[in-house]
Amino acid sequence: MGLSFLVFPSTEHTRFQHALGAMHLATKAVASLRKQGVVIADNEAEALYAALLLHDLGHGPFSHALEHTLLPDTAHEKMSLALMQDMNGEFEGKLDLTIQMFTNSYPRGFFNQLISSHIDLDRLDYLKRDSFYSGVTEGNINSERLITMMTVKDDILVFFTKAIHSIEKFLLARRMMYWSVYLHKTSFVAEELLIRFFKRFDQLDKATKSSLSTAALAGLANNKAAGLEDKIQHFRHLDDNDVWVTLKAASNCDDFILASLANMILNRDLLKIKIANQPFSDKDLQDKQQSFMQKLSLSATEIDYFVFAGSLSTQAYDLDEQPIKLCSLDGTLTSFDASSEIAHFPILTKKDYKYFLAFPK
Amino acid sequence: MGLSFLVFPSTEHTRFQHALGAMHLATKAVASLRKQGVVIADNEAEALYAALLLHDLGHGPFSHALEHTLLPDTAHEKMSLALMQDMNGEFEGKLDLTIQMFTNSYPRGFFNQLISSHIDLDRLDYLKRDSFYSGVTEGNINSERLITMMTVKDDILVFFTKAIHSIEKFLLARRMMYWSVYLHKTSFVAEELLIRFFKRFDQLDKATKSSLSTAALAGLANNKAAGLEDKIQHFRHLDDNDVWVTLKAASNCDDFILASLANMILNRDLLKIKIANQPFSDKDLQDKQQSFMQKLSLSATEIDYFVFAGSLSTQAYDLDEQPIKLCSLDGTLTSFDASSEIAHFPILTKKDYKYFLAFPK
Amino acid sequence: MGLSFLVFPSTEHTRFQHALGAMHLATKAVASLRKQGVVIADNEAEALYAALLLHDLGHGPFSHALEHTLLPDTAHEKMSLALMQDMNGEFEGKLDLTIQMFTNSYPRGFFNQLISSHIDLDRLDYLKRDSFYSGVTEGNINSERLITMMTVKDDILVFFTKAIHSIEKFLLARRMMYWSVYLHKTSFVAEELLIRFFKRFDQLDKATKSSLSTAALAGLANNKAAGLEDKIQHFRHLDDNDVWVTLKAASNCDDFILASLANMILNRDLLKIKIANQPFSDKDLQDKQQSFMQKLSLSATEIDYFVFAGSLSTQAYDLDEQPIKLCSLDGTLTSFDASSEIAHFPILTKKDYKYFLAFPK
Amino acid sequence: MGLSFLVFPSTEHTRFQHALGAMHLATKAVASLRKQGVVIADNEAEALYAALLLHDLGHGPFSHALEHTLLPDTAHEKMSLALMQDMNGEFEGKLDLTIQMFTNSYPRGFFNQLISSHIDLDRLDYLKRDSFYSGVTEGNINSERLITMMTVKDDILVFFTKAIHSIEKFLLARRMMYWSVYLHKTSFVAEELLIRFFKRFDQLDKATKSSLSTAALAGLANNKAAGLEDKIQHFRHLDDNDVWVTLKAASNCDDFILASLANMILNRDLLKIKIANQPFSDKDLQDKQQSFMQKLSLSATEIDYFVFAGSLSTQAYDLDEQPIKLCSLDGTLTSFDASSEIAHFPILTKKDYKYFLAFPK
Repeated sequence: MGLSFLVFPSTEHTRFQHALGAMHLATKAVASLRKQGVVIADNEAEALYAALLLHDLGHGPFSHALEHTLLPDTAHEKMSLALMQDMNGEFEGKLDLTIQMFTNSYPRGFFNQLISSHIDLDRLDYLKRDSFYSGVTEGNINSERLITMMTVKDDILVFFTKAIHSIEKFLLARRMMYWSVYLHKTSFVAEELLIRFFKRFDQLDKATKSSLSTAALAGLANNKAAGLEDKIQHFRHLDDNDVWVTLKAASNCDDFILASLANMILNRDLLKIKIANQPFSDKDLQDKQQSFMQKLSLSATEIDYFVFAGSLSTQAYDLDEQPIKLCSLDGTLTSFDASSEIAHFPILTKKDYKYFLAFPK
Repeated sequence: MGLSFLVFPSTEHTRFQHALGAMHLATKAVASLRKQGVVIADNEAEALYAALLLHDLGHGPFSHALEHTLLPDTAHEKMSLALMQDMNGEFEGKLDLTIQMFTNSYPRGFFNQLISSHIDLDRLDYLKRDSFYSGVTEGNINSERLITMMTVKDDILVFFTKAIHSIEKFLLARRMMYWSVYLHKTSFVAEELLIRFFKRFDQLDKATKSSLSTAALAGLANNKAAGLEDKIQHFRHLDDNDVWVTLKAASNCDDFILASLANMILNRDLLKIKIANQPFSDKDLQDKQQSFMQKLSLSATEIDYFVFAGSLSTQAYDLDEQPIKLCSLDGTLTSFDASSEIAHFPILTKKDYKYFLAFPK
Repeated sequence: MGLSFLVFPSTEHTRFQHALGAMHLATKAVASLRKQGVVIADNEAEALYAALLLHDLGHGPFSHALEHTLLPDTAHEKMSLALMQDMNGEFEGKLDLTIQMFTNSYPRGFFNQLISSHIDLDRLDYLKRDSFYSGVTEGNINSERLITMMTVKDDILVFFTKAIHSIEKFLLARRMMYWSVYLHKTSFVAEELLIRFFKRFDQLDKATKSSLSTAALAGLANNKAAGLEDKIQHFRHLDDNDVWVTLKAASNCDDFILASLANMILNRDLLKIKIANQPFSDKDLQDKQQSFMQKLSLSATEIDYFVFAGSLSTQAYDLDEQPIKLCSLDGTLTSFDASSEIAHFPILTKKDYKYFLAFPK
Repeated sequence: MGLSFLVFPSTEHTRFQHALGAMHLATKAVASLRKQGVVIADNEAEALYAALLLHDLGHGPFSHALEHTLLPDTAHEKMSLALMQDMNGEFEGKLDLTIQMFTNSYPRGFFNQLISSHIDLDRLDYLKRDSFYSGVTEGNINSERLITMMTVKDDILVFFTKAIHSIEKFLLARRMMYWSVYLHKTSFVAEELLIRFFKRFDQLDKATKSSLSTAALAGLANNKAAGLEDKIQHFRHLDDNDVWVTLKAASNCDDFILASLANMILNRDLLKIKIANQPFSDKDLQDKQQSFMQKLSLSATEIDYFVFAGSLSTQAYDLDEQPIKLCSLDGTLTSFDASSEIAHFPILTKKDYKYFLAFPK
């Protein structure tokens, strides 16, 4: 949940809890599918459980915020896979099937869909969990019912037709969680500051980086060009604690920008952020920058760290992905898109944009 | 919840619990509004609490199902008002202000809006309660947040702009509760059978009615033409128990139709019901009726009780009613309809119809 | 929960919900025991589920209150068994195994212990359920954990030693639910009035009974001497509704005592009740009776209905019953009584008495 | 919750959440007491809220585990007070009343009792919170009811007599939470290892400490003899992150003992721990130490870090503290100890001891 706890103080739950939860839902899904007659071998079930337990391994600290900053060329899925392969070596191939399912190279495709699709066990866990911990009940979904509504036709995951309202609710809840929680303007601006903190950090010399930071974090920052295997060695030892002590160390450092960014985050004394449905114009941004350059005596290079604009976006239901399929009691398959009026709402199917302008108070 | 327990066994909660809950929410709303500086006198607060406690007094047993059958010319709001006036006599005018609020004749209109509007305390209680007891978490709403988002401008109830996603969720949840719970096809057909049971019951002679039923129920059934005051005397003593013992008594009676209807409900051995998005044609109905008249040896009059068609409908957001108003932090009012894309979704603003055809198994 | 809703308005949950819940726990218990290697055949599992679903069949309306009044010589367990046997006839022996388990004649004794023992699935469901619905969280227990702590040794149900604190909690919670909820003085006195209502009702002539009551209730009341088979015919059709309409009918009847008792219950205008740790003396009772005989112009026979004394008692852990056994990880069995200090607390092991004196306000 | 998450993965809730929760309960207590006619001025209420918000300021990371290790001569209450006084300087005396309440020098003693007594708002929050997050429902208490059962007599906090069962439940729940959660053997042994980690860390030279740790943590460790004011400067910047990065850095260091302890904690590869009701003898300990000195080639100084014995204890109800007072509806005060049989149970009133012996696997 990144820095959401700055807004929702109870969202301190961890990715490990989510991984356990997603694996737990996998045991429920397997039990429910077997009850319906879907044949799932014991080794398939086990491989699926491992896949859910490990699917998020590649997320680093403050995952989405720092993904492109700390590991610029390595998407988290790629890192997850690399770590699984690493473990698979240690475990002498026991994760082979898990890796096949994870990479969608296992012929029975519904296993991959349970790991990653519109309505997968990952989302069924995190939406419910994040809604619960944040107290934003608008995002609550009925994971148990959605799981019991799943079935398998020709190795494809489909939903019983009578789940249609639960699916609609799921898609709408996902959209609401994005706007109400994941993209809440206060934690969003804090994460933008954190990204800028590491952008600035990257410009320091090696020695300063090492003095302000931990071995793992400085190791990554000082070896951006290294190969994946090298990066993994640092990445393995990296967690939120490395980021926080770096922020604390930087809060007293000589670099004005770095110290300012650190203090804003640590003291929750953030920038002001304006949200609009239309983009802010270049002039809006330049005027604000001019005004604060004078007020705070900042140079043109510095001002970008404190006055900036951009967009937020989310897309609840991408019609280009493998669509959700419905299955009537007599076995006929139809597409969810064809059956639900909600499936075509632009707020779900289009990328939904908002625009922001951030500047000091 | 009428006969919903036939589908959702835990929905045995009572209207009294709802009345207490709605009154409880009124205490929260008053505390929250006062904190924002809205002046509410103690007698106004008390009158509001009484209004929420009493607002549903006029609902008889199996309320919506039997409203037009047992009391054909008396809407439940009219009966609620008559009973409040009755009590007001006993209480020597202590309910004057409550009645003004209830009938929207009190000048500070937000009190009436708290009792009856798009997002009133009645709905905030029953949607949450019914979602909770049915286990249909899709209908869960964030009553607490919606209440803290309420404020008052010129004696009109408005919502802070940042509540927009909670309001959207509220409207969508209401629609989902209708299709998933309130109009669930199984409890719906059971209620249609109950309506037909009382239609048939009305055709019996007075003595038979009295022998099969209780004093209060027979009193109403035998005095359909009586004035409101007379009806109140029977209505006061009427509750679900009178309906159930009448069904049990009728299940052994000589009237084949009455006994059949009673047994179908008591034994949960209901008609089959087909649901479609288009109306069933007259021919569809006639064919089914013909086929079952032969199979069950029923006459043309009798068959209407066992094979029938019709429509179900709901409308989550009626644009003709007083619209929901939003209030920005600087006090500007805008309309929810203008701000939310969801407000214009046809599934919310149009009457949403489904069609059914019911017939024996 | 009898008349508990007079104190805890949300305790309107039904015995049917409890039966479903107890059966649901049986599925959890079977799954957990099988995971530990206990062999349970499919027909054994099914028989157990049916036993939990049906175990309370013999409870009539307001069960514990009216058990001895409506069916003086038939304990509810006897009636449950009779009804199961009846069904077993219809089902052509499919309940044979269920009945063996229920009557403890099946050799694998742990099935009976799951149905009826210190910590059985019946109690695991109702304590949690009643605590939840009443809001008395003091009575909440950890049913899930207690079930996963169960195992089987030589066909006897035992608990893993590390469950010791959960068992202690269970016994203490049970005691607290008795004093805080089941024997709450307000619902207790209401149930005493209900018992007296039916005692008085019994003294009416047959015709009056029939005119005030329903076929099923009058049938039982007018045939106290009938055999079990005859009683079953009436009992089958009896439920709470019969009691409520009889109370309503009696509230206007000519018999002063019957009408008074009915009105006290219907209007929640109950007797005052004093609770003490020592019994009230005969003189205490006689003085109160004298004083109210004069005040209310009641005869010596009548006063017993309105001024009476007696005791309430509960016993959380009866050391004479088959004791709870603990099983260490290496398989050694010890007795819970020997391991837990709490097991010997007199408040649990002795019958715990309180005394009451009830009289008009 | 220290290292409880090693056993209960969901117990990642923070002390900040607890502080907010305790303050929230304070608003409930004030509202409830005012409703009963207890006069509480607005500045008293505010001071109480601040006291609950700040009461735990003096807890460092892994509080109870590291209290005596990191700050050997400064109890956390002393540090809390020092930090409040510091803030009071900044706030120009606005915390004067809060500090009086906290130090029990304010004449109206019930404010201090709400902050610190047998049943204070601190415990009402953390017991419920820790029970909830751990899933150990045995420890759940009814905070809301206990608060509404509080009243004030002669400025002393007392409870209505009818709360007696809720109080009993509270004391028993507290005991159970200690044995089931707070002193769970797995997290307990992890915390013992953490204490030993810092004991070893203290023996390193200054430069090594600084190189392995953060400024704040090394600052405290290198200045054990400093005055309180100096310590505060480091303490302010210290949190769990400092401990975790120090553990990570030490896991690769040259000191065998330090690295071993760090790795045991980080990899959850802990010592084995035996629990008994009687102390382990010196011989038991020495035998184990001898055996592992040989097996692991450890010296006599080193073995103390890996093989050690000691005791765990808890006391749920200390009869020497200001006792809980009950207040009947007519205002008479009695002592809880005199009214409740449970109050005298040795398991509550005596220090309850268990003994452990820890050694490598």
